[in-house]
Amino acid sequence: MIFTVQIKVMPLKDLLDPQGKAVMGGLQNLGLQNISDVRIGKHIDLQIEAETKEAAFGTAEEAAKKLLANPVMEVYEITIN
Amino acid sequence: MIFTVQIKVMPLKDLLDPQGKAVMGGLQNLGLQNISDVRIGKHIDLQIEAETKEAAFGTAEEAAKKLLANPVMEVYEITIN
Repeated sequence: MIFTVQIKVMPLKDLLDPQGKAVMGGLQNLGLQNISDVRIGKHIDLQIEAETKEAAFGTAEEAAKKLLANPVMEVYEITIN
Repeated sequence: MIFTVQIKVMPLKDLLDPQGKAVMGGLQNLGLQNISDVRIGKHIDLQIEAETKEAAFGTAEEAAKKLLANPVMEVYEITIN
């Protein structure tokens, strides 16, 4: 069975996110003053072939730990539809 | 009222995603052969101060159109909790 998996990788809450800060500056220069606290991460869509949803989740977790997210700076969140 | 808004920006389905292809190669080299069709986009979390949810959505849409997403290559999806 093929599962569609979404992995969200975001910078840790306690860390500064310079990319987010820059984008917030850009948005405010465009006149969108009511936007704050911009944080930018990655969104990864992938297909996993597995017997069960749990197995697909395990594979996604392995992918996130080994390659997609850096645990020192980022947190990941896995969603399977 | 402050709304927490999530904007997902992904490369268009019809376009090649070289970053996704590279990551898929990396995952397969790590032994995760059952992963396919990797696509990588951005995930943006932000706070919007607005009177209503609709107004917050409008602001998020303006931000996505003006700065966050390139409509030639990307699609965006806005979620407000």
